[in-house]
Amino acid sequence: MILKISHIGIAVKDLESSNELFSKLFAQNNPYTEHVPQEKVNLSFFPISDSILELIEPTDASSSLSSFINKRGEGLHHICLEVDDIKYEINRLKKLGFTFINNEPTVGGEGFLISFLNPKSTNGVLIELCQKQ
Amino acid sequence: MILKISHIGIAVKDLESSNELFSKLFAQNNPYTEHVPQEKVNLSFFPISDSILELIEPTDASSSLSSFINKRGEGLHHICLEVDDIKYEINRLKKLGFTFINNEPTVGGEGFLISFLNPKSTNGVLIELCQKQ
Repeated sequence: MILKISHIGIAVKDLESSNELFSKLFAQNNPYTEHVPQEKVNLSFFPISDSILELIEPTDASSSLSSFINKRGEGLHHICLEVDDIKYEINRLKKLGFTFINNEPTVGGEGFLISFLNPKSTNGVLIELCQKQ
Repeated sequence: MILKISHIGIAVKDLESSNELFSKLFAQNNPYTEHVPQEKVNLSFFPISDSILELIEPTDASSSLSSFINKRGEGLHHICLEVDDIKYEINRLKKLGFTFINNEPTVGGEGFLISFLNPKSTNGVLIELCQKQ
């Protein structure tokens, strides 16, 4: 079952200046930030009610996020839906014809199990599923 | 004050086939749909917890949404933040250097007051503010 919109990911070129911009926009200061070396990104988080706006900065020109920014510019990158049972949802969606970038869930930030649907099967929208452990 | 993520707008070319796709994805049937002639779009709505995924189909090649799809393809289009006082937020954000597509709020779907920030001032993210009346 889909529980809620966990977060919305926004691709940015420079996290420091974007943190300043979104801090003003959301009237929040000093967002929590995180470096995720295995994905070659830096993240910062702005909670909005029970969801989060997540800024994502690539730390390496070879990352898929760098390619995204080079191709499409900064802006909305993905949405993440929190589910109660990620393996059940992956199986349910595969049977319906959806395809996944990673067929088995991996462990993401804060120990969440995560899996990305292939945007070719979802009208061009990059959708991540996540499940609290 | 920003209250919550009201909705996430997703640009689609063909609402009928996208309704079918997202109905499967979200395990929901027969989404509520709406025709908004003044904006030359058809909409459909998939509630997720206390937010909504909104599909937007252009009904006219001259609409700004058609230009968006021609330039960037289908996919994530905008996010809408519900605020308690839209005029206060517009003034607050203008003083901080943000610019707006429409400087005065207009009346959108369901009688909400709405206003769009200029994405040039928000890292390429098209952000709508809305307030219940």
